[in-house]
Amino acid sequence: MASIGISPWEFKLEHTDYNRIVKEFGLETFTDELLARMKSPHRLFRRKLVFAHRNFQAILEAQEKGEEYVVLSGMMPSGRFHFGHKLIAELLAWYQGQGARIFIPISDIEAYVVRGLKMEDIVKIAVDEYILNYIALGIDLTKPEKCLIYSQWKNEHVKNLAFKLSVKVTASTFRAMFDFVFEPSKEDVEKGRGSDTIGKIFYPLIDAADILSPQLPEFGGPKPVLVPVGVDQDVYIRLCHDLAPKFGMVKPSSIYTKMMCGLQGPGTKMSSSKPETAIFLKDPPEVADKKLRDAFTGGRPTAKEQKELGGQPEICVPYMFLLFHFEDDLLKKVFEECKAGTLLCGECKAIISERVCKFLREHQEKLEKARDILPTVIEEQPFLYKKQELKGI
Amino acid sequence: MASIGISPWEFKLEHTDYNRIVKEFGLETFTDELLARMKSPHRLFRRKLVFAHRNFQAILEAQEKGEEYVVLSGMMPSGRFHFGHKLIAELLAWYQGQGARIFIPISDIEAYVVRGLKMEDIVKIAVDEYILNYIALGIDLTKPEKCLIYSQWKNEHVKNLAFKLSVKVTASTFRAMFDFVFEPSKEDVEKGRGSDTIGKIFYPLIDAADILSPQLPEFGGPKPVLVPVGVDQDVYIRLCHDLAPKFGMVKPSSIYTKMMCGLQGPGTKMSSSKPETAIFLKDPPEVADKKLRDAFTGGRPTAKEQKELGGQPEICVPYMFLLFHFEDDLLKKVFEECKAGTLLCGECKAIISERVCKFLREHQEKLEKARDILPTVIEEQPFLYKKQELKGI
Repeated sequence: MASIGISPWEFKLEHTDYNRIVKEFGLETFTDELLARMKSPHRLFRRKLVFAHRNFQAILEAQEKGEEYVVLSGMMPSGRFHFGHKLIAELLAWYQGQGARIFIPISDIEAYVVRGLKMEDIVKIAVDEYILNYIALGIDLTKPEKCLIYSQWKNEHVKNLAFKLSVKVTASTFRAMFDFVFEPSKEDVEKGRGSDTIGKIFYPLIDAADILSPQLPEFGGPKPVLVPVGVDQDVYIRLCHDLAPKFGMVKPSSIYTKMMCGLQGPGTKMSSSKPETAIFLKDPPEVADKKLRDAFTGGRPTAKEQKELGGQPEICVPYMFLLFHFEDDLLKKVFEECKAGTLLCGECKAIISERVCKFLREHQEKLEKARDILPTVIEEQPFLYKKQELKGI
Repeated sequence: MASIGISPWEFKLEHTDYNRIVKEFGLETFTDELLARMKSPHRLFRRKLVFAHRNFQAILEAQEKGEEYVVLSGMMPSGRFHFGHKLIAELLAWYQGQGARIFIPISDIEAYVVRGLKMEDIVKIAVDEYILNYIALGIDLTKPEKCLIYSQWKNEHVKNLAFKLSVKVTASTFRAMFDFVFEPSKEDVEKGRGSDTIGKIFYPLIDAADILSPQLPEFGGPKPVLVPVGVDQDVYIRLCHDLAPKFGMVKPSSIYTKMMCGLQGPGTKMSSSKPETAIFLKDPPEVADKKLRDAFTGGRPTAKEQKELGGQPEICVPYMFLLFHFEDDLLKKVFEECKAGTLLCGECKAIISERVCKFLREHQEKLEKARDILPTVIEEQPFLYKKQELKGI
């Protein structure tokens, strides 16, 4: 077996130019220097799947000085919980283990106002798909002081902060930031775009209030807050960087992770509403197995070529599952044998599928047990749905 | 004394053309027929100071059928409580006596977001100027089921309704209704108008949510709601007429009263922040007396002319105090003697001032007693300020 002299994660995933993103958005690259300051970093950092950040130093400093900090990640209660969501949930669980306080806003005002979902569906999805999976993935939701999970509809502190923030931004600024349409132009009309609703226009302030709320006096005042985000959500971080100093708050920190692509390969997206694009954490193992076997791989056109040239894990969906989710040993073994041309796709898929299915079986047992913990969560969390709203869930 | 064959309130007040207002705003005139359907109507109706309405029939029908209805009037917690505010407070107390449930929203989000006031000042004014005067004027605030008085900041039902309403109005509609500036034109810039804040643009939905909130399931579902408003606030009523049917609610009813003018006479305004324009209910009687004696009257240039032609109560500020606030007997006597030229302004002012000062002395004693009731109000009302917010008030 040929040594390839490169670690299993020194590859670009999909066809994304992360250097370009860092430049375009004015982010800071996540350097080895930062990594070296972290104690036993989570695999997302170790494998350089976190590629950029803003102000991550503030989080490291808080950890080094033993000072309070928060890690916050919202959830959109629509669709189903997949391996992309798992990643962030595990990161939150890991940070909770490190002593961070966790905030999990349920974006249920957004789901209603911007996406037009029905409240009963929103509550069902938030509980059945998200909360249960969070518990099963190891986040302790039973103690609000360790992890506050809340409905935006129920958290008056967040809504009131949104109204306070609303005094400091103009319509003109928001149009430029979010591409809103106020008075539709001829071009807008041709594109089928009408005037946006007041709800949609106000909404980013609720998102910003989520991010800034851990710094409210009610939650202990100014402190570093880390928000793992996709690049498409960086605009909310920039909005918070504008607003925080005007309210005596610290600018939030953010990290940007590479994204898993859809099962159809680089350039496609995992979608929580399209079962063919993603593996859901409630998929029966045989369904997941089928999905993985149908997934796009980095295999060569013929077995002969593959043996000569080796495979291409950097564009391979099954490999991506190992890279984002599973053990170093297995990852390394598969990577090296694939590149060496000794492991062909059929056999490799069987190995990876076995690992994924093992996880799913174990996880689905934990999901069952999570139901027993749910009543305690509902009872202890001050801004979550009430018992009577959960009937039939 | 000449008989003048006209009742003391068949006059226009100030220089306002109420017929023009009714036409321009598409209101309905408040007719004698409606008046005849009311049981012992409040003097505001009897004296035709209520000149127009929308959908007042719904309120009469509810009363006639013994069905539930609500009377709602908000307060802006800025400035001082004057005789204009007294009028609406007394109307609310009267409706409460008739069996209506009263809603009093404190516009403290508006005070903060639109007017830029400080929260501590807002709370102090709401309590010291408004709540105490409401109690002293006979509104029972100790039972939320009879009168719900609430802070917009504290009432999650109102805020959540505002977000739900926000889905049904576009930026374009709001610009037309409220004359908002999104992208300032050259003309706007010349007038010193910049882009409006998102807070100001969203705010009308909180106002609409106040008006529609009595029809929420939490408050017993759809029902007639009467809102006494100034013509300048009719736009909020129109907004609610648009929105109500989209949420399965009844279109609110509204009544429009003539307004007292400022102490400087017709065409001037009472202002809660300008002591020279209005008599405040906390003014010491000697201050009120001085203000009344300096007020604009309908007197003729000379005593001789006045004796020949009679005075002009229809443009007279002291007379206006009688007309809006005091007994029929006194009103009639002053009106007839003034028109007959037998009562000159100096003597008349003394009579009216005596009546006003008597009211103020009695009212200010009630204000003292109202302080004893305040703790019960604070304790019983679910969406009002908490004890600790009232320190030093």
